[in-house]
Amino acid sequence: MCDQPGKCSSNSFKFAAIQIGAGTDKALNLQRAASLVAKAAKDGAKVVSLPECFNSPYGTEYFKLYAEKVPDGESCRSLASMARQNQIYLIGGSIPEADGDNLYNTCTIWGPTGDLIGKHRKVHLFDVSIPGKIHFQESEALTPGCSYTTFDTPFCKIGVGICYDICFAELAGVYAQKGCKVLVYPGAFSMITGPTHWELHLRSRAVDNQVNLTNFKKFYN
Amino acid sequence: MCDQPGKCSSNSFKFAAIQIGAGTDKALNLQRAASLVAKAAKDGAKVVSLPECFNSPYGTEYFKLYAEKVPDGESCRSLASMARQNQIYLIGGSIPEADGDNLYNTCTIWGPTGDLIGKHRKVHLFDVSIPGKIHFQESEALTPGCSYTTFDTPFCKIGVGICYDICFAELAGVYAQKGCKVLVYPGAFSMITGPTHWELHLRSRAVDNQVNLTNFKKFYN
Repeated sequence: MCDQPGKCSSNSFKFAAIQIGAGTDKALNLQRAASLVAKAAKDGAKVVSLPECFNSPYGTEYFKLYAEKVPDGESCRSLASMARQNQIYLIGGSIPEADGDNLYNTCTIWGPTGDLIGKHRKVHLFDVSIPGKIHFQESEALTPGCSYTTFDTPFCKIGVGICYDICFAELAGVYAQKGCKVLVYPGAFSMITGPTHWELHLRSRAVDNQVNLTNFKKFYN
Repeated sequence: MCDQPGKCSSNSFKFAAIQIGAGTDKALNLQRAASLVAKAAKDGAKVVSLPECFNSPYGTEYFKLYAEKVPDGESCRSLASMARQNQIYLIGGSIPEADGDNLYNTCTIWGPTGDLIGKHRKVHLFDVSIPGKIHFQESEALTPGCSYTTFDTPFCKIGVGICYDICFAELAGVYAQKGCKVLVYPGAFSMITGPTHWELHLRSRAVDNQVNLTNFKKFYN
């Protein structure tokens, strides 16, 4: 780990943002993810991220069906294995998490030894209703998280949000103040709201906070 | 004035952003401003803004030469007259202000009666040095302001910054929290840094704070 977390911004490293869709076959989704993570690591990536909801189709009707406990489910076991086998830091996109009666949209973060080193539950649930264009209410199925999520690497401190979290400037501002040099927002923006806000938020969070931003153009319709 | 300052966001009104360059003849600069303000008011504008440094060429070597006391100088007398004669709210772009031994880049704000109702001294002085492209140090000549500046109209509360102030998200965030529905940043961005950041900051401040943004494409080389 970094001797001075958040202080080692001069180190450079290769980051891989894996962009894949997800079908209804969870095992196949995990296999595809594992294959691409291995490819990224072979190409030299030291930190790899998967997109939001990479193990399940994206929709309120799927979340309960695909939900797992963290870190006891098959998706977490698979992610731990990917990190350990490839000796990388792995930001596990997100999966539907079951915790008691609640469901969360949760990103798990794994170290090169396969240990769970962080967990982010999506704070800002995406509720949108534009008549004739899009209606989607994450809050019908999910419970919001309420925590900041950062982790240390030998390269720099990294902050994590999920998709719509990027629309709220304060989260990125707090991460920058905590010393993060890279912010990662695994996402699955819609094709209605995505093109309007995607690049704007990426660029403005990066410029306003003088950090590097990464998220994912995994759009859904 | 508004019965509920900052609460009357449903009122619509016409805003005019006057874009003019400034030559070395201060009297002529003031005449041109007065002519365009009158035209805007005749066209129905209720709130009008001039650009940064509208009474003087833009450059550290000019600021002392063109500086005036506020509100005792000829530029302020002219601005008061423009507001009163046209019965408008006038955001007087900015002028070099002399106060004791200090110079400021100062925006004066005038009510329809010709009264001075606000004054903003540029908080974030623009110091830039890109080898071979641009070198400019406002801080060599100017002293920074240290205050937030808002004013009430019958239409909404308005927040004011000057040019480089727009690059700092916190200022716009505070104005939004104070109830401003419109933010105005008279500017004179350079052609080196302007194209990169201009639209990005305008759009992101507006979206992040859910306000209307106005500033000015008065570029200088």
